[in-house]
Amino acid sequence: MRVRVQTEPSLALIKYWGKAEGGINLPATTSIAVSLGGLTTTTEAVAAPASSNGPRDTILLDNEAQQDPKIASFLAQFRSRYPQANSLEFTITSSNSFPTAAGIASSSSGFAALALAVSRAAGISLDSSQLSDLARTGSGSAARAVFGGFTSFPAGSPTATRLFDHTHWPQLRILVVMVHSGAKPVGSRDAMERTRLTSPYYEPWVTSSHELVEPTIAAVRNRRLDELGPLMRRSYLSMFGSMLAADPGVVYWLPESVRLIHQAARWRDDGIEVWETMDAGPQVKLITTEDQLPALRQRLQQEFPALSVLEATVGAGPQVTELNGASA
Amino acid sequence: MRVRVQTEPSLALIKYWGKAEGGINLPATTSIAVSLGGLTTTTEAVAAPASSNGPRDTILLDNEAQQDPKIASFLAQFRSRYPQANSLEFTITSSNSFPTAAGIASSSSGFAALALAVSRAAGISLDSSQLSDLARTGSGSAARAVFGGFTSFPAGSPTATRLFDHTHWPQLRILVVMVHSGAKPVGSRDAMERTRLTSPYYEPWVTSSHELVEPTIAAVRNRRLDELGPLMRRSYLSMFGSMLAADPGVVYWLPESVRLIHQAARWRDDGIEVWETMDAGPQVKLITTEDQLPALRQRLQQEFPALSVLEATVGAGPQVTELNGASA
Repeated sequence: MRVRVQTEPSLALIKYWGKAEGGINLPATTSIAVSLGGLTTTTEAVAAPASSNGPRDTILLDNEAQQDPKIASFLAQFRSRYPQANSLEFTITSSNSFPTAAGIASSSSGFAALALAVSRAAGISLDSSQLSDLARTGSGSAARAVFGGFTSFPAGSPTATRLFDHTHWPQLRILVVMVHSGAKPVGSRDAMERTRLTSPYYEPWVTSSHELVEPTIAAVRNRRLDELGPLMRRSYLSMFGSMLAADPGVVYWLPESVRLIHQAARWRDDGIEVWETMDAGPQVKLITTEDQLPALRQRLQQEFPALSVLEATVGAGPQVTELNGASA
Repeated sequence: MRVRVQTEPSLALIKYWGKAEGGINLPATTSIAVSLGGLTTTTEAVAAPASSNGPRDTILLDNEAQQDPKIASFLAQFRSRYPQANSLEFTITSSNSFPTAAGIASSSSGFAALALAVSRAAGISLDSSQLSDLARTGSGSAARAVFGGFTSFPAGSPTATRLFDHTHWPQLRILVVMVHSGAKPVGSRDAMERTRLTSPYYEPWVTSSHELVEPTIAAVRNRRLDELGPLMRRSYLSMFGSMLAADPGVVYWLPESVRLIHQAARWRDDGIEVWETMDAGPQVKLITTEDQLPALRQRLQQEFPALSVLEATVGAGPQVTELNGASA
């Protein structure tokens, strides 16, 4: 079977940072997220009978062969859950419409796409909860990216759930400002573990993060960016604060990240409704609404002419196309 | 009596951030600091008989008349401790050889100078402990600035003490890189209180800060910048982390602050022994040794040509000149 999948990255408004004990990527904090419609990971999986020596998968990311241990480990997890896949081997090709491993949640859409693609290619039909659970074993945030719209991924839970679909708040826009396109100096997974193991702020980060969850769901429910914004800001600043206190401290911010943080506050003072967030990397994501876009784009163009900007809407969720085995 | 005082700012290597309960500026964390020789606050105080309506002090900072409530409150505290000053009024003039209220500890040298100048002008001779205690009531870090060399200001203590005099580590150099010369958006006192009252990281900041004290004193004792540097870095990054998690979060860093943080790490990778620290403001202080200065100055000139740099040695401590009353 040959299957093509398109998925969207999941951007956390309230952050997942830290893993709970006792499982693969069980989150220590509840995250609330939105799917980034318009940014796409496209993954194709072809299943074929495994050779007699066992399955030998081939993985091509952006046309380059990969020996990624995270992907190998994900496929081993997949086969242990669904032994019917032991008799199959996969040829997987994947590419992103946006920069990879640069703090735009490429691992969320990547593993959501992979979970969908290999399960469908193997002829295994999973419901959204099983799919979320499987995607999570590749990357925690991928548990959210199997859904469109707004999601919740509760602390300690193996699966995310959808809170509202993509039609709930169609005016919302997310601008991803590309401060730096290269890979990060420290991967998210390592920085998260370093924070958990060495930062004296890790426990209060986890505890205080919970307080943001219910007000954030209410702000999204009521489509109140003025209420959502300060909650998002507390979440990301606290997350970065927890990393600064790790040993050694992790500093993901770059000069232009900081300039954007300060300018976003100035733009708000000037009447533009925009709130920033950041993830484990230097990029800044600006959350705004459709009506604010012309003013905001003008300020970005004037004040940050060198930076490229990706624009996203609230995404509808993954799309799967099953292509006939014959054409594979 | 007319008295002229010269004092130096006190730069914390391990930070004072947060006040303990129960007194004026009793610190919640133990700070370890160095006096910045070469940067100077010059303060002159003239004491004259108070008018029949009570004392009316005149205060000129950088030739401008001031109605600073912090100075008024300090003088009230001074008179309540030393009632003989109730019969005197003071004319005080003060100026700094470096920018004021921009995160270069001008309040430390300012209140140390003021405590020295008014007590001497009033004919009151205080020992260093009494002077430290008095200066503290104006600004916590001023308790350290009445000494030269290296100081400790223990958590909960009303006075700082000298650890080592300025001859202990004569090779040490401190470069203050002026990222921004204006006043800060939020004063240190307010940001400190906001952190104490609203940051979930405040308690672990206080607790974890204590662990740095003994290793830092040992590193200074042994003149080991390679040991001191990582301890300093943990202290300042943790301090900023505690502020980010305040509500609302305090972001003192500016783009060039972050660029300097990253460049300092690169310079270390290139073999230059230099460690950065920051205080409640955007300036970056580079701690190095005399032999590293040529290489470091070259990198600063190449990579940050627009920024001015103040250079300090380990300061010898305050100087007092008593000028004859007749010439006043």
